[in-house]
Amino acid sequence: MKRIALGVQYDGAHWHGWQTQPHGKTVQDALEAAIRRFALTDISTTCAGRTDTGVHALEQVVHFDTELARDMFSWVRGVNAFLPPSIAVRWAVEVKGDGDDAFHARFSARSRTYHYVLYNQPVRMPLLAGKAGWVFRPLQVGPMQEAAAFLLGTHDFSAFRAAECQAKSPIKTMHDIRIERRGDLVVFTLTASAFLHHMVRNIVGSLIVVGNGNQAPPWLSTILDKRDRSLAAPTFMPDGLYLAKIEYDAVWNLPQESVSALPWF
Amino acid sequence: MKRIALGVQYDGAHWHGWQTQPHGKTVQDALEAAIRRFALTDISTTCAGRTDTGVHALEQVVHFDTELARDMFSWVRGVNAFLPPSIAVRWAVEVKGDGDDAFHARFSARSRTYHYVLYNQPVRMPLLAGKAGWVFRPLQVGPMQEAAAFLLGTHDFSAFRAAECQAKSPIKTMHDIRIERRGDLVVFTLTASAFLHHMVRNIVGSLIVVGNGNQAPPWLSTILDKRDRSLAAPTFMPDGLYLAKIEYDAVWNLPQESVSALPWF
Repeated sequence: MKRIALGVQYDGAHWHGWQTQPHGKTVQDALEAAIRRFALTDISTTCAGRTDTGVHALEQVVHFDTELARDMFSWVRGVNAFLPPSIAVRWAVEVKGDGDDAFHARFSARSRTYHYVLYNQPVRMPLLAGKAGWVFRPLQVGPMQEAAAFLLGTHDFSAFRAAECQAKSPIKTMHDIRIERRGDLVVFTLTASAFLHHMVRNIVGSLIVVGNGNQAPPWLSTILDKRDRSLAAPTFMPDGLYLAKIEYDAVWNLPQESVSALPWF
Repeated sequence: MKRIALGVQYDGAHWHGWQTQPHGKTVQDALEAAIRRFALTDISTTCAGRTDTGVHALEQVVHFDTELARDMFSWVRGVNAFLPPSIAVRWAVEVKGDGDDAFHARFSARSRTYHYVLYNQPVRMPLLAGKAGWVFRPLQVGPMQEAAAFLLGTHDFSAFRAAECQAKSPIKTMHDIRIERRGDLVVFTLTASAFLHHMVRNIVGSLIVVGNGNQAPPWLSTILDKRDRSLAAPTFMPDGLYLAKIEYDAVWNLPQESVSALPWF
């Protein structure tokens, strides 16, 4: 038995999130159907981080076990032949599949990085529809950066947690939040040990309230401390959210393509 | 009577081209329906350059005549309220509408600029599906630039003209062709007095044959001189084609937003 890790990219606007559903309109359903057509056997996959409806992945990481002996690029090309244009396998790497030190897409991950891409102009941009959030009032990056600093480190993030979140603990470690203006875009990049359900969209929604001047930066600290979801801003639209990168130990030899090398950032 | 010029952006993947059709699934049909809902009267529009199915416009220019007195930003906001996410009016400017020197979106245009965006990597990129062409074999930019130089100036472009082209003359003037690699993208930017039907896609298809080493640069000169469409490469996919800019005399005071300021280039 071999264990294989895949890097998978998808445009979430076409799918009802990652996780398999009875209606079958999810990324996992489409990926497993394509693997089945290539491998001619049922194979179930495990992902690093589930994404919601409308949320994109620049690089989701998935693992599965198989008896088949194929070279790694055959998995890429073969599975892609059965995937729709909105999903593709970008790479395949064989990893250790047994023992206490086996690779696991979710449990071996050290941290996750998400981008939120926001278009900040009075008039919306059709060529970014579904690919970026839109805020028509001008945003100040400085106050948002000041507010974001309150979230760094280990905290109880209940203030930014969806009611339906299934995580065992609301305590996570935020390693980094970068907020940069690039022309008419504002790009948020968040790296944490793990994220609660809707956590990035809830944080971005609250940072926008600071960026447009409706709250001062310390408001983020106050709502974080109160751990009350109803005090923070509503969940922001999924359109601009990208699962950018899952970080693993170098021992796994997974491709470490730079996320900032992507064409539209 | 006033004449109003609009800058219109659209994602062509959702539409059967610009020009009105009985089935109504075109950008012109959607725009005129939205104007009708805002203005409560039928208004017909004239565009600067018709685009085909799947072809995008960063900035199409359109004019129409109306008796209505509304401020210009009302036209932008009001019409956008009735447009789907894949189309938006970006600006509105009142222009001279009568006399021999009246503004006309098509006839007043001095030149047109198109981008063709190509993703050049072995594995396709789902987040660029419909937004960029894809060539999996490595392309050399140098030979393509050398080949493109043969097209500069005034020529009979019949070699790159679709059979169904309705232009009166195949003689056009190519002002500029730039070809640049930006990471995994190759971006072609062509500016000409006007373009024949499928001309950009036919030129890009032929330049790719040079870029992948199947022909040497002077081949472009040979096929141009022979004026025989069947000698050039097949029409390349519409996905990466963007009508970027229509150039007018400064006297019209139309917004001159730089096309290179767009977020994904």
